[in-house]
Amino acid sequence: MSSERNIYLRDVPLDTAIASWHAALETAGLLRPLERERVFLHQAFQRVTAAPVWARVSAPHYHACAMDGYAVRSVDTTGASETSPKRLAIGTSAFPVDTGDPLPAGTDAVIMIEQVLELPAGAEIEIMAATPPWQYVRAMGEDMVASELVLPSGHRIRSQDLGALAGSGHGDVLVWRKPRVAIIPTGSELVAAGETARPGEIIEYNSLVLAAMAQEAGCAVTRFPIVRDNYAAIKAAVSQALEEHDLVAINAGSSAGREDFTSRIVAELGRVCVHGIAIRPGHPAILGVAERRAQDPSLPINAALVGIPGYPVSAVLVFDQIVGPLLYRWQGMAAPERPVVRATITRKIVSPAGDDEFVRVSLGQVGERIIASPLAGGAGVITSLVKADGVLKIPRMSEGVHAGAQVDVELHCPPGKINRTILAIGSHDLCLDLLAAALKQSGAPLFLTSAHVGSLGGLMALQRGEAHLAGSHLLDEASGEYNLPAVRDMLASRDIRSVVLGLVTRVQGLMVPRGNPKRITGLRDLTRGDVTFVNRQRGAGTRVLLDYELKKHELDPRNVRGYERQEYTHLSVAVAVSSGLADCGLGILAAARALELDFVPLLEERYDLVVPREHFDGPLLAPLLANLRDTTSAFRADVKAMGGYGVDRMGDVLAEL
Amino acid sequence: MSSERNIYLRDVPLDTAIASWHAALETAGLLRPLERERVFLHQAFQRVTAAPVWARVSAPHYHACAMDGYAVRSVDTTGASETSPKRLAIGTSAFPVDTGDPLPAGTDAVIMIEQVLELPAGAEIEIMAATPPWQYVRAMGEDMVASELVLPSGHRIRSQDLGALAGSGHGDVLVWRKPRVAIIPTGSELVAAGETARPGEIIEYNSLVLAAMAQEAGCAVTRFPIVRDNYAAIKAAVSQALEEHDLVAINAGSSAGREDFTSRIVAELGRVCVHGIAIRPGHPAILGVAERRAQDPSLPINAALVGIPGYPVSAVLVFDQIVGPLLYRWQGMAAPERPVVRATITRKIVSPAGDDEFVRVSLGQVGERIIASPLAGGAGVITSLVKADGVLKIPRMSEGVHAGAQVDVELHCPPGKINRTILAIGSHDLCLDLLAAALKQSGAPLFLTSAHVGSLGGLMALQRGEAHLAGSHLLDEASGEYNLPAVRDMLASRDIRSVVLGLVTRVQGLMVPRGNPKRITGLRDLTRGDVTFVNRQRGAGTRVLLDYELKKHELDPRNVRGYERQEYTHLSVAVAVSSGLADCGLGILAAARALELDFVPLLEERYDLVVPREHFDGPLLAPLLANLRDTTSAFRADVKAMGGYGVDRMGDVLAEL
Repeated sequence: MSSERNIYLRDVPLDTAIASWHAALETAGLLRPLERERVFLHQAFQRVTAAPVWARVSAPHYHACAMDGYAVRSVDTTGASETSPKRLAIGTSAFPVDTGDPLPAGTDAVIMIEQVLELPAGAEIEIMAATPPWQYVRAMGEDMVASELVLPSGHRIRSQDLGALAGSGHGDVLVWRKPRVAIIPTGSELVAAGETARPGEIIEYNSLVLAAMAQEAGCAVTRFPIVRDNYAAIKAAVSQALEEHDLVAINAGSSAGREDFTSRIVAELGRVCVHGIAIRPGHPAILGVAERRAQDPSLPINAALVGIPGYPVSAVLVFDQIVGPLLYRWQGMAAPERPVVRATITRKIVSPAGDDEFVRVSLGQVGERIIASPLAGGAGVITSLVKADGVLKIPRMSEGVHAGAQVDVELHCPPGKINRTILAIGSHDLCLDLLAAALKQSGAPLFLTSAHVGSLGGLMALQRGEAHLAGSHLLDEASGEYNLPAVRDMLASRDIRSVVLGLVTRVQGLMVPRGNPKRITGLRDLTRGDVTFVNRQRGAGTRVLLDYELKKHELDPRNVRGYERQEYTHLSVAVAVSSGLADCGLGILAAARALELDFVPLLEERYDLVVPREHFDGPLLAPLLANLRDTTSAFRADVKAMGGYGVDRMGDVLAEL
Repeated sequence: MSSERNIYLRDVPLDTAIASWHAALETAGLLRPLERERVFLHQAFQRVTAAPVWARVSAPHYHACAMDGYAVRSVDTTGASETSPKRLAIGTSAFPVDTGDPLPAGTDAVIMIEQVLELPAGAEIEIMAATPPWQYVRAMGEDMVASELVLPSGHRIRSQDLGALAGSGHGDVLVWRKPRVAIIPTGSELVAAGETARPGEIIEYNSLVLAAMAQEAGCAVTRFPIVRDNYAAIKAAVSQALEEHDLVAINAGSSAGREDFTSRIVAELGRVCVHGIAIRPGHPAILGVAERRAQDPSLPINAALVGIPGYPVSAVLVFDQIVGPLLYRWQGMAAPERPVVRATITRKIVSPAGDDEFVRVSLGQVGERIIASPLAGGAGVITSLVKADGVLKIPRMSEGVHAGAQVDVELHCPPGKINRTILAIGSHDLCLDLLAAALKQSGAPLFLTSAHVGSLGGLMALQRGEAHLAGSHLLDEASGEYNLPAVRDMLASRDIRSVVLGLVTRVQGLMVPRGNPKRITGLRDLTRGDVTFVNRQRGAGTRVLLDYELKKHELDPRNVRGYERQEYTHLSVAVAVSSGLADCGLGILAAARALELDFVPLLEERYDLVVPREHFDGPLLAPLLANLRDTTSAFRADVKAMGGYGVDRMGDVLAEL
């Protein structure tokens, strides 16, 4: 069994990998634009010119009237005024013209119709002002003169360019042929999008993502059906794809697992230039060239053949960094560059020296600073790409960045999004998802990004000026009061004025599997020998609540099995229970419902929003605050519908500290 | 004849116009998104979500192995080290797994294959390190938990979003229907792109431009064939279009000319809300609503019906400012915003109070400042849109901006273009077009923008720090020397160090109509009574040369007919001669050739590039300078091929001043 594995994967640095691949592509004639083709203008939008385009005719190609009115000789109008108007005979001294008409021979100006009195007999016009020569005349060549450059080569044709091409006498244009790209998803564990996946099965979506990326890069894309992990079947699919495509991407099978045939197939149908690249995520990529192209003389003989890693974030990164630029190059242009912004990173990132690491971050502007928060999740977490506003590259030979460092972030969102993003941080509650959706639905050009670091972590982020508001449900052990003591201690004492705003009250309780098989009825059951608990992380309000309650009930945490296993959100606690890893966990009703768990309610708590005064008074949060105060809002109704929530004080100022 | 004209066009301010139109659209049910439709994910790229999307399943939907290797119980590995390895029995303590496999029951970690020694018998593995729990395990819900928000409503679906949608259990997604847009070009004078236009005929291209703009805004577009100026024919086309489209755009016929049926037809098929808008360019626009929709219940009853002005810049502006935002609104989203940059405007702009004026500018960065140069050309000049990097809005109630003012410019180019643009200014020569094309073709991510203000104007722009280089052929009357005296006087004397670089020598002569009907052989003929001359503007090198030569030959400019008629480029002089407005003009051979004129060579002159030292030494110009010095470049060959040029000193430093 082990003999079938090929573990010769060797990581080469990104720039070296690209250079080796490019050298092989160069040899195969694949590092230059593909063939030229001529397309009609109505098909030319967003195509790339394959040669400079020169004007064939001038535009206008004659002296043209620029107004509806009368063409005249300017000398004939000299001296006309309101007190001494002049009359001109129609047909000899004044010629009726419409916009676009050629200037009648002998005339050199146009008087607009609104400034002319047409005399009743229809034989004369009267004018009240002199007309300078060339008034309302578009001189021949005013726009373009025959022989002038209209568009350079390598120019992606925009809407207005179509006008200039047509206006300068062209009905078609020479462009680079669209690259033809095949995406072949492989894997016996894959099921198509929309199908139900059983454990061990994976929903195949990389081909959707990669196809859209290739389409965005201007390619004609073929998405192959899923091919099972069968050497002959994969090889047949790849061979077929090579007949008709300039680039064939096999996904995945590029690591060193038992069923990873990709490198073998690439080696058989062509040549492996690189197998394994020192980027993170993205290691197991294969870059190759196939020289077995069909003999159709209209096609180039060769094709690029790549193995894309299976993890979605790796797949996107490899495509974006390595494959995409080639696709643009084939069309005679550089890949579009993304703007870069300088931002403050919120936490330390340790990166292995030797790898180029690409860290997805969310972005928002707090005061004068742009704040970049690294998004959780490994190469398998597609939502980290969905949430990413930008990507921070930590180069090889660097071991990371420290919290608070200034870093350059490549933007993956419209630049205007950054200062329209409300950064929420702190404790997790499902209401924040609903609030983000409600804000978006309201049409306000506003975004709400939540980071889940627990209540205490949220207040610390406000201290550092890294967020606009924090969700918090911190119980003070001494007073039994929610949030205010912590806000006093952590913000007010440091001269950070803030407002504590009611969001919801909610029921916390024990989530247990459906039917409650272990008959758990209260906290006391956590110390039973047959019950495994799953905890929340230190600093989470729910953890504080648990400790408070354990103490109150005189229960020793050391007797709670699983007390040390920490999860970061209500939902992940619910997942741990749902999957049988734990028998119960403390959390909110909505999370239990989401995972179809039973719920043993224990107590009601307050979940507030803490908002620094400067943001509370600023324009960014105004639509959000208005939404919270609106007692008839769809958001409020949605929260109530989830169950377990009280909304009586939503939007109320509970304290100004 | 005049009774058929409807001159009731009244200009209302842009915001008022939009408000009136929107009020009518609102009443007609057209100010909200169109219907929803469900599309498969492979068709969903760039569509806009019509409802929030919540995760149906968690991702992963089971605890998944994240590496190829062996699943183990972490407790079994405690104590393993290189000096005391541990053995685990395959099948009972260690289970072979591939990436993506479900974690076998009872195990809680994965050891990667590379860190395992598979013992020969195949029954055991040996490990050299302890394994922490959850190592290389992707916990259920790590990416998304069922019930979480995947995408909000009103979100334009990106490539990565397709992955998140599929991964969270969706095979399709609810999106807003694509707006259906019809573009109807009307006008008896129109000929289609690629056809030959006779005088009075106009090449129709607005429909190409507007269709591309609508397509870019996510619409399905029908481009109608050209309809002649015939009331019944236009009305029939519009009626037909209304059957199947959400918006029908009639182009043009929206001003008050004899054959402008548009407003009448809009009024008959619906209602005119606005006719005439106080924007520049763009005045004669019609905004209306048609309520005569077919009875197909799958369609909304009404449609928007607009008359777009005929001048291309007006058409684009009206579409961009007024129509486009509605098309996005129909898809549940805001029109994408363009970034804004702060720039220094190079010349005074006078704008009529009462109009919102939109000024096209080219942009480039010189030193620390972004320089915005207004582009020449009225509403008919499509090339002003091709060349525009941005648009400056001069609001109503403002009368313009003064030269050197700081202004906000909306970007119409990628932000990265600005500091990659070489701003050339000064005298016009066709070589600059060739150089721009050559730079682009070389693949260097560089742009060359030329503004034609004459040699003197170019040196003045360098004085003000508004360009990187200036093309100059200024003859010093006293010394007969080219450029150096002027550069000394205008730059060096003000402590602006610069380099004078050879570009070409070129032949100046008299351009005359083919066959030289007036038998013009030299300057002396300009004073003949039957010869009309066309001059260049003051400050142009060619004008200086003319005056120098006239003086030398003791000819009086007052005896030159047409001496006062000024053109700004060699090509426009050639156009004046070609169209019969003048019998001759002084200029270069290439311009004569471009317009197929005969040429009477008079003398050879030097055309140099003047480059301030700081730019000469900077990185921006390096590829351009290298190209000039390359004696085998395609650019040099192209210049020679034009004829009349000498390239012996191209790229040589002629003086450092």
